[in-house]
Amino acid sequence: MFKKLTAEFIGTFWLIFIGSGSGILATAFPQIGIGIVGISFSAGIALMAMIYTIGGVSGGHMNPAVSVGLAVAGKFPAAQVLPYAAAQVAGALAAAATLYLVASGKAGFVPGGFGANGYGELSPGGYSMTAALVTEVVLMALFLFVILGSIHERVPAGFAPVAIGLSLTAINLVSIPITNTSLNPARSTALALFAQTGALSQLWLFWLAPMLGALIGTLTWRAIGEGDDAESCVSN
Amino acid sequence: MFKKLTAEFIGTFWLIFIGSGSGILATAFPQIGIGIVGISFSAGIALMAMIYTIGGVSGGHMNPAVSVGLAVAGKFPAAQVLPYAAAQVAGALAAAATLYLVASGKAGFVPGGFGANGYGELSPGGYSMTAALVTEVVLMALFLFVILGSIHERVPAGFAPVAIGLSLTAINLVSIPITNTSLNPARSTALALFAQTGALSQLWLFWLAPMLGALIGTLTWRAIGEGDDAESCVSN
Amino acid sequence: MFKKLTAEFIGTFWLIFIGSGSGILATAFPQIGIGIVGISFSAGIALMAMIYTIGGVSGGHMNPAVSVGLAVAGKFPAAQVLPYAAAQVAGALAAAATLYLVASGKAGFVPGGFGANGYGELSPGGYSMTAALVTEVVLMALFLFVILGSIHERVPAGFAPVAIGLSLTAINLVSIPITNTSLNPARSTALALFAQTGALSQLWLFWLAPMLGALIGTLTWRAIGEGDDAESCVSN
Amino acid sequence: MFKKLTAEFIGTFWLIFIGSGSGILATAFPQIGIGIVGISFSAGIALMAMIYTIGGVSGGHMNPAVSVGLAVAGKFPAAQVLPYAAAQVAGALAAAATLYLVASGKAGFVPGGFGANGYGELSPGGYSMTAALVTEVVLMALFLFVILGSIHERVPAGFAPVAIGLSLTAINLVSIPITNTSLNPARSTALALFAQTGALSQLWLFWLAPMLGALIGTLTWRAIGEGDDAESCVSN
Repeated sequence: MFKKLTAEFIGTFWLIFIGSGSGILATAFPQIGIGIVGISFSAGIALMAMIYTIGGVSGGHMNPAVSVGLAVAGKFPAAQVLPYAAAQVAGALAAAATLYLVASGKAGFVPGGFGANGYGELSPGGYSMTAALVTEVVLMALFLFVILGSIHERVPAGFAPVAIGLSLTAINLVSIPITNTSLNPARSTALALFAQTGALSQLWLFWLAPMLGALIGTLTWRAIGEGDDAESCVSN
Repeated sequence: MFKKLTAEFIGTFWLIFIGSGSGILATAFPQIGIGIVGISFSAGIALMAMIYTIGGVSGGHMNPAVSVGLAVAGKFPAAQVLPYAAAQVAGALAAAATLYLVASGKAGFVPGGFGANGYGELSPGGYSMTAALVTEVVLMALFLFVILGSIHERVPAGFAPVAIGLSLTAINLVSIPITNTSLNPARSTALALFAQTGALSQLWLFWLAPMLGALIGTLTWRAIGEGDDAESCVSN
Repeated sequence: MFKKLTAEFIGTFWLIFIGSGSGILATAFPQIGIGIVGISFSAGIALMAMIYTIGGVSGGHMNPAVSVGLAVAGKFPAAQVLPYAAAQVAGALAAAATLYLVASGKAGFVPGGFGANGYGELSPGGYSMTAALVTEVVLMALFLFVILGSIHERVPAGFAPVAIGLSLTAINLVSIPITNTSLNPARSTALALFAQTGALSQLWLFWLAPMLGALIGTLTWRAIGEGDDAESCVSN
Repeated sequence: MFKKLTAEFIGTFWLIFIGSGSGILATAFPQIGIGIVGISFSAGIALMAMIYTIGGVSGGHMNPAVSVGLAVAGKFPAAQVLPYAAAQVAGALAAAATLYLVASGKAGFVPGGFGANGYGELSPGGYSMTAALVTEVVLMALFLFVILGSIHERVPAGFAPVAIGLSLTAINLVSIPITNTSLNPARSTALALFAQTGALSQLWLFWLAPMLGALIGTLTWRAIGEGDDAESCVSN
């Protein structure tokens, strides 16, 4: 169990250090900044690579809402959800602190939003709470649907991390303007603690929406993805 | 059959919510917008991931023209084309409505073209009807050619979604300036209904051209891709 | 043989229509243009997807210099090099003509360089003939090295098109400013015929350099990549 | 052994010619330049493709710090670390010299920083030595963690180069503003020799930090990634 929790700690550290660090450090770099495209790929690739790396150790969740969804799906022991979530939040916090250390190594650094998630006046594009809630719930439901579908035994072994990781890239490409893209309560918590804005007061939404979405996505998959009615057409 | 149609509904919802949503919400975001590169990757990755996810349930078409092409190729029962197409259009409509809800969560939102497809004055780059027709027919024919070739038993299992999904990315990279890239009548229909422009009056082209292209691509593949003359050189 | 040549014709058509079409139609689209990054991915993805598609029919060369290299490597019958090259050039010509038709569907269209390759005053960045020659020879040698290495039986089946296709993306990212990236005499020939510049007078270099590079890359691989001294460390 | 060292020489040549060449030649190309996103993908794709190509010959390290890490992990003979490092530095030097030749083929070329790594006033974003040290150590540790995890026998064969190569892309996306991203002493050495800045005087950090990071990453993986406590959840 110690190995699994350490793996989740390191995995979430990597996911936040890369995926959120790119947003904080490189997005608006003069002339050659990475923009939303660069942030989206950094997050999705980081997730993909780490699922390969620690998938065989801890399952490679790196996200409390994913752990909850997999538990509801019967693919992860419910008793391990809380320790996993604690390790994930701790890893995200350590990554945010390290990012803060690195970012403050530049003269005149101001944390500002520090890549935290938000709605209303804290939404990158000024989107309402309702828009944020709908976006995070819908995308998290679809994300769990993709996760459960791509790890199914019908899919040839090894492609699930590609489908899951790059889905996070695609999700970021559409939702960064709305909420700065959470779908991950560990991410939202860690960055909100370092933000100078009121991100902490909006943190409830970024726990509630991903959890609700994960539940919806899992139940939807169970209703249509399992059983004997299916046939294999992915390849061959 | 209920499971298959639900899978196509959800899959097309995801494809449009991500692929068209990124265009509507994030393309021209000030300074860090995703541009045509970001739209192209969001659409292609969404398609790739969902083929892995529901390929084993419904085949993962998410596109009436693809269903028609596969039926002509003898790889899908012709009797299921109409219900599939209905589920796909319904999924696209639900995605467009949800996108409309999210997009209107920003003060001063105006739908405008809402990412719909068009030619002439509704072409992003001002291209003529002929240019639009040629582009959609040629690219759809090649797209079906890639689909049928990459799901062939000669190709190692599992790589087809990569080839098919990322081909949609490549196709977008060249054709967004011409028609905003359809190749999918379900997409065109759903977005045209929400556009404030005359997109509905041009919808005929985005049903006709993909269907015609799918037919050409399927017949071409059948003429040269099947049979004993072929040898395996992809790898090893 | 008819099937193989048709496959090469269609494959090269696709490669040029996408890879060069994106450069002609979408690169400098106002505000949201795809830039060199978008061109590079369109070319590499198109190559990758088509190798999966026709690899089992014709081998999926789509490039006279690749056919020559594979013949020298003993992996392709030398007697088929000329018909293959003819089919490839014909496919590229058909693609360029179709692109011309589409591009001229916009009022005020002027072909200009039409994406052709060049050096000196026809180099995108103004690089000399020597710089162009060195770049095309070195990159083509390395490209053949990657092709022969990744189709070797030591590499797990199915990954070669990913390595080869995306290598073309990486090669474009470095060499578009120098020569607009050829490495493919069929591409250079077809586009030069439609360019309004003096691209035809520079065409010799884009036949000579890729052929020379393919020869060097093939001989280098044969010297170090074959034989019993090697061990498998790619995975596991 | 000659074949292995030649493979490492060629592989490192390719990695630097593409990954650093894109930065030097194409980053700030007017209007359509590739920016940090393009550099990041060129480096990651080049690494991925070459691991497929020479992985079966030499293991495909192309980086002295990776060779050290694999030796500490017991996956590479310690006696070969020095010859490998020599071949890698030689390959990087040859690539830098060739890049210099190409770049000087443009009128008015000035080497400037020549893509070299640096901190303080030589950091692209003006980050301090401490920020540079933390970034290079932390990211190299995580990179080795990913390398060792993704080549583990639990991961389906063939996916390791995807995870490793694209991780380098993600790492570049976050760290180019800090140090211009080294993680590879061979890269730093070769480019510093051609830079007109004081990059040579900062070279110590780009040998020390990657070596230290590689050590930390290797020991961390050995503590949690090996042994019987693990279970396979990546797929199926």
